[in-house]
Amino acid sequence: MISKTLYKAFQDIVGKAKVLTEPEDLVTYSYDAAPLDPVTPAAVLMPENSKELGNVVALCHENKLAITVRGAGTNLSGGTIPKKDGVVILTGHMNRILEINEADMYAVVQPGAVTARLASRVEAKGLFYPPDPGSQAVSTLGGNVMENAGGLRGLKYGVTKDYVMGLSFYDAMGNHIKTGSKTVKCATGYNITGLMVGSEGTLGILDEIILKLIPFPEDRKSIIAAFISIEAASETVARIISDRIVPATLEIMDQITIKAVEDFSHAGLPTDAGALLLIELDGYPGQVKEDAQKVVQICEKQGATKIQTAENDEQREKIWAARRSALSALAQLKPTLVLEDATVPRSKIPDMVQSLAKISATYDLTIGTFGHAGDGNLHPTILTDRRNKAEWQRVEKAIERIFDAAISLGGTLSGEHGTGLAKSAFLKNEIGSASIDFSRRLKTALDPYHILNPGKIIGD
Amino acid sequence: MISKTLYKAFQDIVGKAKVLTEPEDLVTYSYDAAPLDPVTPAAVLMPENSKELGNVVALCHENKLAITVRGAGTNLSGGTIPKKDGVVILTGHMNRILEINEADMYAVVQPGAVTARLASRVEAKGLFYPPDPGSQAVSTLGGNVMENAGGLRGLKYGVTKDYVMGLSFYDAMGNHIKTGSKTVKCATGYNITGLMVGSEGTLGILDEIILKLIPFPEDRKSIIAAFISIEAASETVARIISDRIVPATLEIMDQITIKAVEDFSHAGLPTDAGALLLIELDGYPGQVKEDAQKVVQICEKQGATKIQTAENDEQREKIWAARRSALSALAQLKPTLVLEDATVPRSKIPDMVQSLAKISATYDLTIGTFGHAGDGNLHPTILTDRRNKAEWQRVEKAIERIFDAAISLGGTLSGEHGTGLAKSAFLKNEIGSASIDFSRRLKTALDPYHILNPGKIIGD
Repeated sequence: MISKTLYKAFQDIVGKAKVLTEPEDLVTYSYDAAPLDPVTPAAVLMPENSKELGNVVALCHENKLAITVRGAGTNLSGGTIPKKDGVVILTGHMNRILEINEADMYAVVQPGAVTARLASRVEAKGLFYPPDPGSQAVSTLGGNVMENAGGLRGLKYGVTKDYVMGLSFYDAMGNHIKTGSKTVKCATGYNITGLMVGSEGTLGILDEIILKLIPFPEDRKSIIAAFISIEAASETVARIISDRIVPATLEIMDQITIKAVEDFSHAGLPTDAGALLLIELDGYPGQVKEDAQKVVQICEKQGATKIQTAENDEQREKIWAARRSALSALAQLKPTLVLEDATVPRSKIPDMVQSLAKISATYDLTIGTFGHAGDGNLHPTILTDRRNKAEWQRVEKAIERIFDAAISLGGTLSGEHGTGLAKSAFLKNEIGSASIDFSRRLKTALDPYHILNPGKIIGD
Repeated sequence: MISKTLYKAFQDIVGKAKVLTEPEDLVTYSYDAAPLDPVTPAAVLMPENSKELGNVVALCHENKLAITVRGAGTNLSGGTIPKKDGVVILTGHMNRILEINEADMYAVVQPGAVTARLASRVEAKGLFYPPDPGSQAVSTLGGNVMENAGGLRGLKYGVTKDYVMGLSFYDAMGNHIKTGSKTVKCATGYNITGLMVGSEGTLGILDEIILKLIPFPEDRKSIIAAFISIEAASETVARIISDRIVPATLEIMDQITIKAVEDFSHAGLPTDAGALLLIELDGYPGQVKEDAQKVVQICEKQGATKIQTAENDEQREKIWAARRSALSALAQLKPTLVLEDATVPRSKIPDMVQSLAKISATYDLTIGTFGHAGDGNLHPTILTDRRNKAEWQRVEKAIERIFDAAISLGGTLSGEHGTGLAKSAFLKNEIGSASIDFSRRLKTALDPYHILNPGKIIGD
């Protein structure tokens, strides 16, 4: 509950209609896409512009009120679950693409701008914004920056952090901070931009983002290859990479996922396959052609049972629409879906696949696995029902085993979904307590009352 | 001066021979490549391994002793000038390349490893470590990381920060911190790796670096084009970029630099040219050929007076050796050389060139300009004599005008040389006092006694 005075003060800043406190509004913003307990905030605020945003932050600081910023709420690690009695700030009204500079190849956007909208706007000018998280059709760029969102093109093009040139944001006290530059090179001051990317709203609240753009690839070619087993498919991934081919996208899908996706999307996927690789090559036409031939040869040599090359844009779109539907398709099968993103060095994908099979058997759980095999970033997805308490206990153990397996293979807890609330307790296993203590000192110095998205990353 | 007890304690950690306190040793490490006043440290320490390094840091923390880490001392902003009565730690004995992983395309190195040695070691395996600061033949990777070093390939390949996957380091108290991962994607915990890159030794002391590698380009082609003026050359740069060609390297040299370089290197540069563009294209052979043709056509259309394409590796090497000698060549002309690296969005290069001409005329100074035109990163180089007090006052004013010009064109004080001591006082003009205050809070939380390279970036 917030006091009437405070409620009134928020109304004075953002306007009456943009302070929501009705129970149905509060429930709407009590959860995100992670299977965690919802937490109801005290109010939901919708600032229109940077000035309103800054005033809201300063007021929250004065009143030691927790702030959780929310874009589209597609977060998979609980990063947008608010603090009890705190406020949620929606970025939906700050969604403008402020500038697309063709000569210097950058864009300036507000945090609420939708990822896919920027991508299509710059594509119309022959430019390319590569990061493409699965939720890009609705996800916001502010959320992408704060989670360091990945996607299907990480292998060749990197992730969100590789495209953030500069930021401006409000710190916990409501001071306006500017960092980075519109220049390709910038070595002035600390790399606060780098620190902010992936900080999950715990160090500051964005009002503007400068994003790097690159020329749009001249040509693209997509290939689907079917294998008898996920082991065979994952060995093929290692072979493609070791031949120094760098596909734009190199995705894997196991049998459970293939069947779910085909039932859901009717894309014509071979449901008898043990696993699929979905590959896209892009760039200079001659190279795309040559690399596509090499990829086909490697797949054949590795025993692919079927190889299809998309002949036109429609076929190409069908492949990727099918892949993008994987999460939604799996979500149809069971009431609760736990989507992990433990990531390993790419040569360890076959080992990780083996570990997942063992974990699935040990805990008697259905795990559908798909994901970005080319960059070692699998999405083992546990299909379950949270109401089944006995099974849920096994799920929790299986999650721990997945984390252990990734770390023991030299990998990481999270490739792209962030630490959030979901992985906070496991952070120590990967980075150690000295690194956590270092992070806590940093957090406390920048946000002394811990009002910025408390509990995320380093816990309370 | 350090006490005898402390001197003895350092000897106990690193061994007698590795604590230097003779005046000639101290003088040797009192300056770097920036034209600033030398400062003599109290001792110079040469730890052999991570454990010794950690013990040295902890001892310095206990005694509130300032630490400046030094690789090759090629710093151009005073970042390796020690604090009076502080210690210098040399990384020369921690110079191993610990791992080159071909399958997962990363390398693990110690901070004292020399940049060019890593580059040639990975090239032998068909891999590529692109960042190539001008001093790469002697510069160390630890120094490159701490300065976020740039180089000639920034336009296509980015800078050091784009290749740092993970780090381990000692914080100010001597705690060992691990950050980042050997995986291409990592969204676990804060992006401390990003914060450390470019932090100039003020937040921690590296003991290990994980660097990303990529496949070595299949083909390369180098072109030299001569123009009647630097204006004509810089307009051509903008034209190449706007045609969506992305050269690996796109360098510019004005007449002063051409003459100095030719006198120094006898590479056969056309000394009658008003300016030169030095261009390298790399990648898939078909694309390199096609892009080279396009570049030649653009240069012709823009009035190039002479265009040469390197026919073989020897000719290619000659071009780039000449370019790399620019700094040394200019240094022959006058006793003091002030090398700036103010950077602008690349389309503003013609405006920046005009501003430099005006500044040179206003303050009656000789300014040789060369640099990375493709990424907006020029190196205006003032040729002067610090002993000439009247001229030096004009130099100081000219430097301020160069900074003003870059900032007013939407650029930055430093593209790649760092803030160090040299630009610390000007930082406010670019990022504002709120951002500096934010940085100070961060610094003080992580290094409460300000023992880590004090005075750099944010001042004392």
